[in-house]
Amino acid sequence: MNRTYSLRNQRAPTAAQIQSPPPPSASTKSKFFGKSSIASTFRKSTAGSFGPELSRKLSQMIKMEKGVLKAMELVAYERRAAARQLSVWGYDNDDDVSDVTDKLGVLLFELGELQDQFIDKYDQYRVTLKSIRDIEASVQPSRDRKEKITDQIANLKYRDPQSGKIPVLEQELVRAEAESLVAEAQLSNITREKLKASFNYQFDALRELAEKFALIAGYGKALLELLDDSPVTPGESRPAYDGYEASKQIIMDAETALEAWTLDVAVVKPTLSFYQTADDVYGEIVDDESHEHDIEEEGQEWVSETEEQEVHEDHEEHEEHEVASK
Amino acid sequence: MNRTYSLRNQRAPTAAQIQSPPPPSASTKSKFFGKSSIASTFRKSTAGSFGPELSRKLSQMIKMEKGVLKAMELVAYERRAAARQLSVWGYDNDDDVSDVTDKLGVLLFELGELQDQFIDKYDQYRVTLKSIRDIEASVQPSRDRKEKITDQIANLKYRDPQSGKIPVLEQELVRAEAESLVAEAQLSNITREKLKASFNYQFDALRELAEKFALIAGYGKALLELLDDSPVTPGESRPAYDGYEASKQIIMDAETALEAWTLDVAVVKPTLSFYQTADDVYGEIVDDESHEHDIEEEGQEWVSETEEQEVHEDHEEHEEHEVASK
Repeated sequence: MNRTYSLRNQRAPTAAQIQSPPPPSASTKSKFFGKSSIASTFRKSTAGSFGPELSRKLSQMIKMEKGVLKAMELVAYERRAAARQLSVWGYDNDDDVSDVTDKLGVLLFELGELQDQFIDKYDQYRVTLKSIRDIEASVQPSRDRKEKITDQIANLKYRDPQSGKIPVLEQELVRAEAESLVAEAQLSNITREKLKASFNYQFDALRELAEKFALIAGYGKALLELLDDSPVTPGESRPAYDGYEASKQIIMDAETALEAWTLDVAVVKPTLSFYQTADDVYGEIVDDESHEHDIEEEGQEWVSETEEQEVHEDHEEHEEHEVASK
Repeated sequence: MNRTYSLRNQRAPTAAQIQSPPPPSASTKSKFFGKSSIASTFRKSTAGSFGPELSRKLSQMIKMEKGVLKAMELVAYERRAAARQLSVWGYDNDDDVSDVTDKLGVLLFELGELQDQFIDKYDQYRVTLKSIRDIEASVQPSRDRKEKITDQIANLKYRDPQSGKIPVLEQELVRAEAESLVAEAQLSNITREKLKASFNYQFDALRELAEKFALIAGYGKALLELLDDSPVTPGESRPAYDGYEASKQIIMDAETALEAWTLDVAVVKPTLSFYQTADDVYGEIVDDESHEHDIEEEGQEWVSETEEQEVHEDHEEHEEHEVASK
């Protein structure tokens, strides 16, 4: 396995980090690397100790994903609690602070709600992985049986080469091999089908969550504009707050935008530097006659013809780049 | 406080839910509403029991945000662990599954890393809220002193109206009132300044996290396209996997996109139905002569002139709508 891109020791600062340098490490972080709940540590250490060997690693991963789920539930819960408290705190303040914090609370509460919906979807991803684990577990006996018969034949041939049992066992081996072939094909097919389905589902859910979070952040910033933050001198009173309608409108707009969002209107799209463009990934397939031509022109000889990647005409690819870099 | 938009009992399904109906509730969720760690329950119950009364509610909220932080740290940790395990599981599989799961692991690991960076920023938001709490705590004594002197004067006037102490106390009250005026002005100014700064910071960090998550989801979907999921019959072998370069390229593209991302290139933008457009929120201010005209035309008389909201020309507003609905 090429792990060049999985263990990056020295990372150059990103453009966003240059634009606004990263803050110091959060004071809540423990000094030691990461931290985990006792429950999840226990789950991890016990998962994979039981059951057929073939399915142990995936079993362990499924347990770890349960840990992710549990932790996300906690975030959603704590987020909602903090959102409520923000509104409670703001209530005692001046009108503008009171109204803005209440509406901010609504948006932050919505973050928790959205995360809750994401959790349900993440669980579906996890459940789909379980069907791979199950087929792995069911393939193990047929592998074991084949191996056992092979051993028995070898054993007999050494101890009693004339034994009448050998032909019987050899016939049995042929049957076991046939069964095993079917089982391995099932394993191969189901693993790929479910792996693809589960991660496609997770990534779609993640895109939905992410774009909705980004939307909420935008509306939150709009709400903050309603705060009257021009400094007052001692004794001076602020002009009366008149942003009630505006703040309500922002929340209604946010609600409308969140309700109308679908995967089709997703705006964050990856730019791919080779000619599998984002449209391939999202299903829009354009037949292109100049396939051969493009390959030669772009000099990317490493992408084989057998891959099902469609080529877009140059201008379409540029359009894609423009959208993504907006 | 208008809580019409904070306690929504009956919610209509959103467009995304109609497109793909929500899955059943995650099996990991407890039946009771939410759940919280013992530590955070303890933090919440103790916070706000001590310290000046004025700052108790905000103290409690700051403790709750600590709970959010701790839970997010756990998610980031669990996510990285699951990503590693995905790669470990895939290693024993065929070449295509092995390569794709390893690269998926890299992307999922990156989700954890990004969340870690977000946590540091979220902590800065929390630290900024602390300065509001501190000014609240420091204003309390001056309020108490004013109240105490007022009580003393009233008391003396009742018991001994001719007391020579009364003029002294009245002078002291004038001084205390002056001090209090300054303190209240400081409270008013700092609360607004810090509230705006802290939430702007949080929302910018959230937008960064969200858009980067959406990017990663897109690249993840591109990786899945490399899986050969055409079913094989028993005994049939799959064509040799040749996606190593493509998968590596996807990871490099993802890395490039994540590194190049800044707030300026953010694509998810809110659409606001009144004439404070997204550009106002993001700082781009366009002077517009037809201010009065637009107000009349759109018939939104409720937005006062005193609000610092710039009006965009119609065509610009439409452009904004188009971008956001792409």
